[in-house]
Amino acid sequence: MTVSDLTEAELVARIQSRLPPAPDWLIVGIGDDAAVVEPARGRLEVLTVDSVVEGVHFDRRFTPPGAIGHRALAVNLSDLAAMGAQPRLALLSLALPATLACGDFDELVGGLTALATRERLTVVGGNLTRSPGPLVVDVTVAGTVKRRQALTRGGARPGDGIFVTGTIGAAAAGLQMLRAARPELQGNGQRCAADEQDAAGVQRCIHRYLYAQPRIRIGLLLARNRAATACMDLSDGLADGVRRVAEASGVGILLDADRLPIDPGARRWFDACGADPVVEALSGGDDYELVFASRPKLLGRLRAVTAHGGVPVTRVGVCTPEPGLLVRRGRESAGTTIPLPLGFSHFR
Amino acid sequence: MTVSDLTEAELVARIQSRLPPAPDWLIVGIGDDAAVVEPARGRLEVLTVDSVVEGVHFDRRFTPPGAIGHRALAVNLSDLAAMGAQPRLALLSLALPATLACGDFDELVGGLTALATRERLTVVGGNLTRSPGPLVVDVTVAGTVKRRQALTRGGARPGDGIFVTGTIGAAAAGLQMLRAARPELQGNGQRCAADEQDAAGVQRCIHRYLYAQPRIRIGLLLARNRAATACMDLSDGLADGVRRVAEASGVGILLDADRLPIDPGARRWFDACGADPVVEALSGGDDYELVFASRPKLLGRLRAVTAHGGVPVTRVGVCTPEPGLLVRRGRESAGTTIPLPLGFSHFR
Repeated sequence: MTVSDLTEAELVARIQSRLPPAPDWLIVGIGDDAAVVEPARGRLEVLTVDSVVEGVHFDRRFTPPGAIGHRALAVNLSDLAAMGAQPRLALLSLALPATLACGDFDELVGGLTALATRERLTVVGGNLTRSPGPLVVDVTVAGTVKRRQALTRGGARPGDGIFVTGTIGAAAAGLQMLRAARPELQGNGQRCAADEQDAAGVQRCIHRYLYAQPRIRIGLLLARNRAATACMDLSDGLADGVRRVAEASGVGILLDADRLPIDPGARRWFDACGADPVVEALSGGDDYELVFASRPKLLGRLRAVTAHGGVPVTRVGVCTPEPGLLVRRGRESAGTTIPLPLGFSHFR
Repeated sequence: MTVSDLTEAELVARIQSRLPPAPDWLIVGIGDDAAVVEPARGRLEVLTVDSVVEGVHFDRRFTPPGAIGHRALAVNLSDLAAMGAQPRLALLSLALPATLACGDFDELVGGLTALATRERLTVVGGNLTRSPGPLVVDVTVAGTVKRRQALTRGGARPGDGIFVTGTIGAAAAGLQMLRAARPELQGNGQRCAADEQDAAGVQRCIHRYLYAQPRIRIGLLLARNRAATACMDLSDGLADGVRRVAEASGVGILLDADRLPIDPGARRWFDACGADPVVEALSGGDDYELVFASRPKLLGRLRAVTAHGGVPVTRVGVCTPEPGLLVRRGRESAGTTIPLPLGFSHFR
């Protein structure tokens, strides 16, 4: 049975059966022309939309449907996290190929609703349509943040430290590992000898690629404690994130390669593939960690945040008054600096 | 030059160049992780998302890019109109085939921003991605409405009149006319002798199909004056709209075929094609008029609304206590009733 055997109403009912009861602030939910919500008082609303497209953001041959649904919401929640916002509601817009099996549809929705439930986010409506081509999952999310606490990309100043949450490189390595396991799919992916890899590291990288964890909690804490001067999420890699923060803030940034929190499994993988782990980890996308800037005088606040953020935070560089994006490799005296590699881009 | 020759930043800049200056309530706009707005006080927020997909909702061979952009926003504004909401902001999510010419991209965006500007709607952010298949334009809109004024589908009661704005059937006829002009594209479309048609009627029907006008003003007036008990927009035809209002309200509905405000050019077209204009006008989609219910004791309010709504309103039927959806054809005494035809569905 495929989705083309069901009516739109039947497909909507399958989604609704996976959703928890609606909260009080939802005045009109799924099933009318539009959703009606009552925004929280004294708070700003934060809105974003992001889509995942088959053949661009995921390959159905090695991405389980649940991971597609998870990702479609996670990438949006990561944008809210980067603003310091509390997630509130989501709208789903699905373009479905007629060949999509109903079981896969349910798993996709299940991956999305599981993450929504965990983050106390309410699905308030959406849209279903056929697709004559790829599966497209488009998610809009709205959240709230107090005035003057929103974390933009534009507040970093020379002398601010540059920090990153968690580890980087794991998702890019995980995607290469998935591709390497299917030799017919190796586009950019390298094939590496499996016996050089530790099983736990491989598992972790693949899981990081398939089930990115948006850093909502530490984003909220950074905002509430006003501990960051700029913030962005790493959808397209740390190099891309640093470049955008630098541009929006009008500063240069110098990163220290030795300090980058590269996932050890990813490092081993890149080494075994003959690639430079620093370049791969900087330019690889899909980590969905946060990169943020913080002023030296905010160090006390930052320590309080990191004590409760649920994820390690690493200082990886500094903002400079001179424009330019550089990476220092090796010890400070004997080291060399290289230009920052490019991040991932969907277009040119 | 196609969109794959440009960076995402260059594509975003082309969109921004078509937008007016941002209003005060937009705290963070395009270019950060998410948009930040300050919701209006004492008002509910209404949110909806809808997408248009190449090969499903439009055919690029006879739909100009500007009409695609117009439609993508219009279908969403129509949902807000059906709730009685004042449009406020939009988010755009575009999945772009690499072969899309930059001029077509600009026209598409121009069609959308022209309608946004006319309706004083602010584009606050969005997302751009590649598409390995069809062009997909996904738009999320948010608007505001006062508490207890939101027009849902569920408030109609037996004895309420059923009303429709403007005319119906023109968009469905317009699509058939466009297809008929391209014999190689005739799927469901019929070919009719052009000399039986009046040029102005053909022009009007095609324009109605390509540039649907969301009925925002009359939706707002119906809500503010509390002149309607239920309301819905006609994206999938009057038959579908009536069916949904009846289901949500728990009533039956009896329509009067002789009263249907069928566009005269469409009627002529359907007649010439040997089709039944009543069935075609009831089941044809894309009209984006409003169907609403109103109580007899609200007639004074309704007259005040229609005097300023900018579009004619026609009483086409009545809500009945017995469930069932019927159409009466011919004079009341000698007429017959038939079951309501189905509306358009993307799925089964």
